Amino acid sequence: MLFMSDNAASVHPAVWNAMRAADAPDAPYDGDAVSQQLDARFGALFGRECTVLWVATGTAANCLALASMVPPHGGVICHREAHIEMDEGGAPGFYLHGAKLMLADGESAKLTPDAVRNAIDPIRDDVHQVQPHAISITQASEYGCVYRPDEIAALAKLAKERGLGLQMDGARFANACAFLGGHAADAAGPVDALSFGFVKNGGLGAEAIVFFDTQLADVARYRRKRAGHLQSKGRYLAAQLLAMLDGDVWLDNARAANAAAAEIASVANARLMHPVEANEIFLRCSAAEREALRMQGFRFYDWGADAARLVTAWNTPQEHAVALSKAIASL
Amino acid sequence: MLFMSDNAASVHPAVWNAMRAADAPDAPYDGDAVSQQLDARFGALFGRECTVLWVATGTAANCLALASMVPPHGGVICHREAHIEMDEGGAPGFYLHGAKLMLADGESAKLTPDAVRNAIDPIRDDVHQVQPHAISITQASEYGCVYRPDEIAALAKLAKERGLGLQMDGARFANACAFLGGHAADAAGPVDALSFGFVKNGGLGAEAIVFFDTQLADVARYRRKRAGHLQSKGRYLAAQLLAMLDGDVWLDNARAANAAAAEIASVANARLMHPVEANEIFLRCSAAEREALRMQGFRFYDWGADAARLVTAWNTPQEHAVALSKAIASL
Amino acid sequence: MLFMSDNAASVHPAVWNAMRAADAPDAPYDGDAVSQQLDARFGALFGRECTVLWVATGTAANCLALASMVPPHGGVICHREAHIEMDEGGAPGFYLHGAKLMLADGESAKLTPDAVRNAIDPIRDDVHQVQPHAISITQASEYGCVYRPDEIAALAKLAKERGLGLQMDGARFANACAFLGGHAADAAGPVDALSFGFVKNGGLGAEAIVFFDTQLADVARYRRKRAGHLQSKGRYLAAQLLAMLDGDVWLDNARAANAAAAEIASVANARLMHPVEANEIFLRCSAAEREALRMQGFRFYDWGADAARLVTAWNTPQEHAVALSKAIASL
Amino acid sequence: MLFMSDNAASVHPAVWNAMRAADAPDAPYDGDAVSQQLDARFGALFGRECTVLWVATGTAANCLALASMVPPHGGVICHREAHIEMDEGGAPGFYLHGAKLMLADGESAKLTPDAVRNAIDPIRDDVHQVQPHAISITQASEYGCVYRPDEIAALAKLAKERGLGLQMDGARFANACAFLGGHAADAAGPVDALSFGFVKNGGLGAEAIVFFDTQLADVARYRRKRAGHLQSKGRYLAAQLLAMLDGDVWLDNARAANAAAAEIASVANARLMHPVEANEIFLRCSAAEREALRMQGFRFYDWGADAARLVTAWNTPQEHAVALSKAIASL
Repeated sequence: MLFMSDNAASVHPAVWNAMRAADAPDAPYDGDAVSQQLDARFGALFGRECTVLWVATGTAANCLALASMVPPHGGVICHREAHIEMDEGGAPGFYLHGAKLMLADGESAKLTPDAVRNAIDPIRDDVHQVQPHAISITQASEYGCVYRPDEIAALAKLAKERGLGLQMDGARFANACAFLGGHAADAAGPVDALSFGFVKNGGLGAEAIVFFDTQLADVARYRRKRAGHLQSKGRYLAAQLLAMLDGDVWLDNARAANAAAAEIASVANARLMHPVEANEIFLRCSAAEREALRMQGFRFYDWGADAARLVTAWNTPQEHAVALSKAIASL
Repeated sequence: MLFMSDNAASVHPAVWNAMRAADAPDAPYDGDAVSQQLDARFGALFGRECTVLWVATGTAANCLALASMVPPHGGVICHREAHIEMDEGGAPGFYLHGAKLMLADGESAKLTPDAVRNAIDPIRDDVHQVQPHAISITQASEYGCVYRPDEIAALAKLAKERGLGLQMDGARFANACAFLGGHAADAAGPVDALSFGFVKNGGLGAEAIVFFDTQLADVARYRRKRAGHLQSKGRYLAAQLLAMLDGDVWLDNARAANAAAAEIASVANARLMHPVEANEIFLRCSAAEREALRMQGFRFYDWGADAARLVTAWNTPQEHAVALSKAIASL
Repeated sequence: MLFMSDNAASVHPAVWNAMRAADAPDAPYDGDAVSQQLDARFGALFGRECTVLWVATGTAANCLALASMVPPHGGVICHREAHIEMDEGGAPGFYLHGAKLMLADGESAKLTPDAVRNAIDPIRDDVHQVQPHAISITQASEYGCVYRPDEIAALAKLAKERGLGLQMDGARFANACAFLGGHAADAAGPVDALSFGFVKNGGLGAEAIVFFDTQLADVARYRRKRAGHLQSKGRYLAAQLLAMLDGDVWLDNARAANAAAAEIASVANARLMHPVEANEIFLRCSAAEREALRMQGFRFYDWGADAARLVTAWNTPQEHAVALSKAIASL
Repeated sequence: MLFMSDNAASVHPAVWNAMRAADAPDAPYDGDAVSQQLDARFGALFGRECTVLWVATGTAANCLALASMVPPHGGVICHREAHIEMDEGGAPGFYLHGAKLMLADGESAKLTPDAVRNAIDPIRDDVHQVQPHAISITQASEYGCVYRPDEIAALAKLAKERGLGLQMDGARFANACAFLGGHAADAAGPVDALSFGFVKNGGLGAEAIVFFDTQLADVARYRRKRAGHLQSKGRYLAAQLLAMLDGDVWLDNARAANAAAAEIASVANARLMHPVEANEIFLRCSAAEREALRMQGFRFYDWGADAARLVTAWNTPQEHAVALSKAIASL
């Protein structure tokens, strides 16, 4: 019973079908008929004009979006525990040519306007200090918590005042959106670019960079090629994205993962380190308790010495979630 | 009747089957059971120890291999018309952090030891000049010509004398290998790293970087993550590679493409700008002649003002090749 | 009798005096009273608003100017024999983060609008190709030849049409200006940024980057710090520049060097490979002839197998120039 | 009465004299007779073979040394308040091509082996995490505290065990050395490279990178050119360094600055935030107290809301130090 991560789950059948349906030769790179539909389809979803580029990974999505906003001598404000700081092997340093991640604090890995101000006001216009050019937020956050629309709006307002871009890492955007009621525009708010994750949610190897500031896409297009991420058979990536949008597969998958997480969280009470709003549970439990869970067949990561991280996926079997729920209640 | 490029052809059925067979959840990234087989399988093919990393594109494969050999202040000697110089949107400049491509000449886009010496001897140990750290050759070359084993050996000897790495761009390695008789080790020779292409030959989105100098792979592994090319569901990439190795699908596909090219070349005679040794034909023909071919339903790229480039693929229908052959004969 | 280069000549007495005069402690970096005068003083010289940054070397000056115009995924069009391509140890690749130098041809190392168009038109808007963002020209050129005002204007017009920045490497700007009659504005034309060289013309270690597009200076200021070129005792650099502007020392020095070169050129006739318009002479002469010159005490660089490069400086003794002139006449 | 910083102090007369003495033309760059003496002279000082490169700034010195040890995908462990992290405008990100500064803690801005282990042990060999390649320490530290020889030795032992380079930022190395008794080898310990600062100690614009691991210098030499830091009249930089070594000017200057600081510290008692071991005093004092000092003519920087930073220099007048001392005693 796997609660390691959603990032290695199986591919959704609709995705397989769409990929096979795209098998006939077509124009290479992103000139094919499927890729050409992306802007309109995502535009309809968000109710807002956008330009969409596919890439294979969330790391590339985040970095290409940020690289379109931030010059090499600039900086990106992000949470101290953001994925771009903690887990991407230095990719932002590579894609942004040594631009600096400027770390700020906040509950449950969510930034606040005050935290951003504290990080940047003291060094404003000081040539000896890297100056910020963008803010990056994660929806849902590293701790599975969801920015509410007004929280995003407040950060966007600050970004605009300071001339900063606003980028959203949405590796689990679908889960955040499901939590907020299913309206994509609410979950994204007025960000300039969104890394809309599909791989963790039933895709094979395709994420969407959604540029609401479409001029940024003109830059990102060249950067994508330059980073070796312009696949020649792009139609197979575009097909994955459209298959997930069709009939709201993306939202159904996220709801299923969230429901499994809620099932488990419902018994965890005081053990919860953070509210469970998406598909991740951070559970206070001792090494002995973790061992007990593992003896019952549950697989998951330790989170430091005194906690576990449990992640559900679009296809987590209902019975596995129930079993884990019971096991936690019995600890 | 498509002779545009092999880079957007359909995916081979064996590849689809292998991907579906890998659908059960497994360890993420390259920790899965399929990825774990790569070193041994490629090692057996080449009769030589190697470490293999999958990536989605040939651009990434070439650049990651070179980045493991060349520091930012160094240079790579390549042919003036090499793909890394001409068509990768500045990717080497990105991955190698501004290292310089040092251009050399040679017939049919193949380097010779003399050409390499001419490029580097005059600037040796001059601190005002970028110093070479690697040689990059393309098998088959940009003009569809194949390095013979003794030619590779001579370049490898020079590389060793000068302390340079030797990298092979094998986007069409299979076609070169088929031309040379089908022995992978002959077609690769003693290079340090090979970008073994599968996408143009029936794959979906997976290429293999084969490191014969396995220490280079230790570097490339970190660089791959840093470049956003460590996909979380890597088993689907590994499965593509193994599906092509199984039963020599890769070689059969390349032979089919080469045979189609040979069929066409057989009538082209003096129109050929380069020997046809793989699956590309560079054909002298006027704008009017190209128009005539297009009127008959053939699609292909112009090659400057007075020539056309025709590329066959693993699934080019025999009747299309015959038809094109006749059409050329009738020009 | 030294004709090696002007780049290691002695420092002009006025420069020494000005440096000593700036010895009292003042604000660090470029906050001091001397540095604060630069914009106005250069603005008066060029009759045009500008922002001026000092740096220690021409390499840094060129690269910082270009880095303010060109993003990492872009390119710079320059002459195939430009200093930034040939002699700066890969500095543009470093400062521009892997941006590409796009090489073009032209007589005596001078670019023409046609040469620029030939270099960039065929790859326009092709995502597989690095796109140009700036043109770099050298005044005087690598072969000591001077762009006339109308030639610069034509290039500036093209740059504007194509949305490209225009940068001038003026390592020997003073010599070019002296040739054109001494009006700085004529020699610079409508470029966006000029590397105005002082080191080769009697300075110790200070060059001026003159930004006529002053917004570029806002970027370059951060880049200068980031490159370790914001010296803490900047007043000693600023003092050098002002000392040279005072009483037109810079122009007198350049005139002296040009006159010495003209003296030598006057006897060289058909041996001249390029018109002698500044302070460099490229002289056709055999190895035996060069040996003969060296036996008479002249020191200079070979220029390939069949030529010599002779450079005069601000303090080349008149009798040395006359002696060399006679020696050449006697070859 | 200036206690702002030592970085804009006047140039020592011996330095002026040596520069003037080097005025005759010589080989350009670092081929001149003065530059050629550096290795031997510093080798004698440290009693250890070394290769020495001059550069104009400490930022360049630190970054070039680190760039010779750390690949772009690697990291540098430094103190959270190290100058390379706090005050160099992102220069390490530029010179190291996006390599990561891995921050660690420690009293008075000094690293300890435990702090280093805490920073790197949890992420060891994890491809998703930047791996360390070097440790950087500052002698004296950002808070004017001095590493004792056994402290450096312990860090060097750890570095060796883990295969890490060890670099020392010695912007105030002379002050640290004076504190330790004047033996350069004690103050440097077994580091691989030392940025030996001269500018803050009476130089004009020259620092020495002392490579005890001389192979690193082979890399740094190319990187220096590439960074635009290979000045053509290098003899004027080398002359500054030698002038300071001659007759131990460097040590006398540092002793004078330290003595002035000690004078001030002697009255500060509980106001001292850190031991005063070099030439910096961090003084707890309220805004009103700082205002009072300023009213008496003292100039210095605030250090946050409740403290002041006071820095003495080689030429701080004795009477100024005494006056400040009295003023502090009277607060």
